Amino acid sequence: MGLLGGSLGMALKQRGLARRVVGVARRPEALERARELGSIDEGGLDATAAVAGADLTFLCVPVLAITRLLPLLAPHVRAGGVVTDVGSTKTAIVDAGESVLPGRFLGGHPMAGSEQAGIEGADPLLFEGATWALTPGEASAPVEPLSELITGLGARPLLLPPEEHDRAVAATSHLPHATAAALARVVADALGEAEAAPRLAAGSYRDTTRVAASSPELWRDVCLTNREPILAALGRMQGYLAELAEALRQDDVVAVERFFRQGREAKARMESARRKG
Amino acid sequence: MGLLGGSLGMALKQRGLARRVVGVARRPEALERARELGSIDEGGLDATAAVAGADLTFLCVPVLAITRLLPLLAPHVRAGGVVTDVGSTKTAIVDAGESVLPGRFLGGHPMAGSEQAGIEGADPLLFEGATWALTPGEASAPVEPLSELITGLGARPLLLPPEEHDRAVAATSHLPHATAAALARVVADALGEAEAAPRLAAGSYRDTTRVAASSPELWRDVCLTNREPILAALGRMQGYLAELAEALRQDDVVAVERFFRQGREAKARMESARRKG
Repeated sequence: MGLLGGSLGMALKQRGLARRVVGVARRPEALERARELGSIDEGGLDATAAVAGADLTFLCVPVLAITRLLPLLAPHVRAGGVVTDVGSTKTAIVDAGESVLPGRFLGGHPMAGSEQAGIEGADPLLFEGATWALTPGEASAPVEPLSELITGLGARPLLLPPEEHDRAVAATSHLPHATAAALARVVADALGEAEAAPRLAAGSYRDTTRVAASSPELWRDVCLTNREPILAALGRMQGYLAELAEALRQDDVVAVERFFRQGREAKARMESARRKG
Repeated sequence: MGLLGGSLGMALKQRGLARRVVGVARRPEALERARELGSIDEGGLDATAAVAGADLTFLCVPVLAITRLLPLLAPHVRAGGVVTDVGSTKTAIVDAGESVLPGRFLGGHPMAGSEQAGIEGADPLLFEGATWALTPGEASAPVEPLSELITGLGARPLLLPPEEHDRAVAATSHLPHATAAALARVVADALGEAEAAPRLAAGSYRDTTRVAASSPELWRDVCLTNREPILAALGRMQGYLAELAEALRQDDVVAVERFFRQGREAKARMESARRKG
């Protein structure tokens, strides 16, 4: 019952898409709060019992908790019941889900979230207009019922293989989170050298480091389950930064301008592809 | 008459802080537009004539254009006239200004702007609440008159030596612009490999790459006039990214989580210092 689970419950209830929404948490107070906020109809502390009574289960915990939970929950999933998730990487999760729930698991990833974790940030409109990736493998549950439900939530389903999803988000999401964390550290280092640094930070600092406030546990799991694509993206990032450093060392006016021009063109290319998509 | 010059003119006029605002541009249409938008009272194509008639001149062009303009304009500055600027780096500009206008130049840098260049984005409230650095050197104009005017514009003056300013903004502003450009390129590269990449880009991509749309000419000048501090900041950034890459290669769960935790702590440290400042 965090940001995603809480928002999902609110959206399902407000749009009348579920007969009953049952939330699971470790602490009774979390369930109480989820009820107060209108995220769930009822709550329980026992995930196996909740799964046993559910037509559809959303696993809204960090990636490695999902892969750990799947074998524990699988024996309790009722006949005809389907399990999905909202984890940020898909290959490891789909492998785990298909092996314990063949034909009854389907991986999902809503491209919505916030550096504000926790149910207090929950918002029934969180998924409005957002892409919601569904990543069927060879032994996944049928796509249509979940795809329709997601459309009902206001999101836009996107079907693609788990490996392709993971390669793409390594660049579009995981690398931005990694660079935000690194950037936040470089700027905090500057505090020791220039007392005025905080007053000299404006919009570029604020925006490029916003997601550095995200959950370390969540991002640890994302990185460890998407190592190769993230290492490839990090390698490219390092290469481009080295390009700028070399141009500066050489005092190469043309190369420095080209670095920023290519950045602007890349941003424009992406925006244009996004508008077409 | 771009974003900063246009906004400055609007703010000066709306707050009645100048008897007359005279704008200078290369094209008559730009002056016409600046008049329509209420940025200037009158315009001219000849910077030397405008400077000769002005009590206070703001140079609102890229950094290297400022250092080129200063010796050309200096002979025309009237007795008692003062020149300032809004350039993003200060050491090179203050050196140039003090050498041709001893006692009559004072470097400035409003921490306000946008990746949207051009007068169409001009906004009289652009400076509201923003830090406006003033960086007196040993032979600069007195600080008080300009400092008062800036306060009148709604900004918060911050006095510091040019070198300290440049070291701080290398981390708080220049590095964020460089990483945004590099990040935009890595993500655009992913377009070639995953057609779905644009639909898999959400808030983290949007925010971390927003300023990649900035002017390449402007950022070329910033980098070339602040080489050593930017190289130092880039070196640190590369070091932190290498730390994450190594932790991933070693599959080191603790080190990966520590990387993101230190990023979050750095972000919190900066926010806390900012609130105190």
